Amino acid sequence: METLGYYNGEIGLLDEVRIPMNDRVCWFGDGVYDATISENHRIFALEEHVDRFFTSAALLYMVPTITKPQLAELLQTLVHKVASPTQFVYWQMTRGTAPRSHAFPESTTPNLWVMIKPHILPDIYQKIPLITVEDTRFLHCNIKTLNLLPNVLASEKAKQAGCTEAVFYRGNRVTEGSHTNVHILKEGILHTAPRDNLILPGISRAHIIAHCEKLGIPVAERPFTVEEMFEADEIMISSASTFCMSASHIDGRQVGGKAPELLRKLQDALLDEFRCFTCAGRTGEQCA
Amino acid sequence: METLGYYNGEIGLLDEVRIPMNDRVCWFGDGVYDATISENHRIFALEEHVDRFFTSAALLYMVPTITKPQLAELLQTLVHKVASPTQFVYWQMTRGTAPRSHAFPESTTPNLWVMIKPHILPDIYQKIPLITVEDTRFLHCNIKTLNLLPNVLASEKAKQAGCTEAVFYRGNRVTEGSHTNVHILKEGILHTAPRDNLILPGISRAHIIAHCEKLGIPVAERPFTVEEMFEADEIMISSASTFCMSASHIDGRQVGGKAPELLRKLQDALLDEFRCFTCAGRTGEQCA
Repeated sequence: METLGYYNGEIGLLDEVRIPMNDRVCWFGDGVYDATISENHRIFALEEHVDRFFTSAALLYMVPTITKPQLAELLQTLVHKVASPTQFVYWQMTRGTAPRSHAFPESTTPNLWVMIKPHILPDIYQKIPLITVEDTRFLHCNIKTLNLLPNVLASEKAKQAGCTEAVFYRGNRVTEGSHTNVHILKEGILHTAPRDNLILPGISRAHIIAHCEKLGIPVAERPFTVEEMFEADEIMISSASTFCMSASHIDGRQVGGKAPELLRKLQDALLDEFRCFTCAGRTGEQCA
Repeated sequence: METLGYYNGEIGLLDEVRIPMNDRVCWFGDGVYDATISENHRIFALEEHVDRFFTSAALLYMVPTITKPQLAELLQTLVHKVASPTQFVYWQMTRGTAPRSHAFPESTTPNLWVMIKPHILPDIYQKIPLITVEDTRFLHCNIKTLNLLPNVLASEKAKQAGCTEAVFYRGNRVTEGSHTNVHILKEGILHTAPRDNLILPGISRAHIIAHCEKLGIPVAERPFTVEEMFEADEIMISSASTFCMSASHIDGRQVGGKAPELLRKLQDALLDEFRCFTCAGRTGEQCA
């Protein structure tokens, strides 16, 4: 198959699958999701993404009808049905199907969705332009929910400005990107926003922190300001589908470019980890 | 028909209609809605609700493929297909159908949805218990969007507490209910939150203000605090489906009940207006 849509066991091409109008996603966006990349039909960091997915569900009082290993197995089975060697693997759970009423429905179980489509890995060493956008989102940004309108608006604003990503600020604090986390390098230290309700605890963010520890790069998990970002040695965004890319410009001003070696070390470490996992020994090269 | 679901021209029973998985409502909650009540197949305050719907769409940069009169005519046609004499009439527009990507899709038109189901008008003179909940919503509450997770959570919290509605507060300011506006009466004056990005400009709210003007009741459109609400003569919630109901308790504390005549005047005016419109001369009574 070229693409795959899955809904409670029904499978079809993504643009052919249909779902009930009374799925609560249609009236309330009432659900959570997670996503990662598959290469050579191996799903990267699957266990971590499944863990976060269950955490998101629990934070919205949703009780999955599937266990973590069952979900991981299902996803692993489904990626084999899609031909593309590199895939965007996405899944979500909605609270159920019931007539529209705000409070939770009494007698329904969550719906499980999967969506798989071909993905093109970006050249992560390419520099990208960013814009800043005021963070007007709700205060549940630690949960990966389907209430993404401010993210949609910010992404569109970035696109209109010819930029790759929008960086949110709340007051003077940089929170995260519209679909990435944001980090800065300054005087050899990685600064990244702390895990609170204003940012998503990114899996790539966690991998970056782990690589910093291995590489002896100190990490400061603390709020940083818009000014600090503009004056940083390097500004990076991270996500499951883009790994870690660095900014050339923010709001049209040239930024970063002052710690290229440190940046490269981190990017190499992330990409090596991915390549090593998804290659699974095929190339015969020795993994680190 | 007992219920009706409409999706871009397809019509069926609400629990039978299916929509494409790639409708952007499924991934982002990317859409706006509006709703009102129909009685005797006459839709109350239709023009005002259609106007607000188009305003919501414009605020999200969505361009409807239908005009306001065409939408009103469609809704008027559809309510005649449903048997119930009293109906909840709901419609929404989603940004379109396209593979998941945050920014607006290039070549798609919005999808138009309608949902009609039987409705039971509440006894609006009944006193109701409320709870307060911190307002953690985004800063676009003036737009009637499909990003309603905090509203869902607050409604569920109210239900669990045996209450009818949750009243949001942001800092010390009362904003609105999870699906209603909130007003207080104090020393003969109606206080209601101003129209800004923290509340929905309710149609019932507008009708209440208009009735106040006719009845010589002064109106203060200004933020009021949680303390002011607890100490008010009467506390009222309003919405298209509940008109205007008053609180007996908030967070278990007895409240209001100190201006029953003024409250009754307002409630009578609202209900009379509705009855007069939906009766349309059938009872032979003279309307005010």
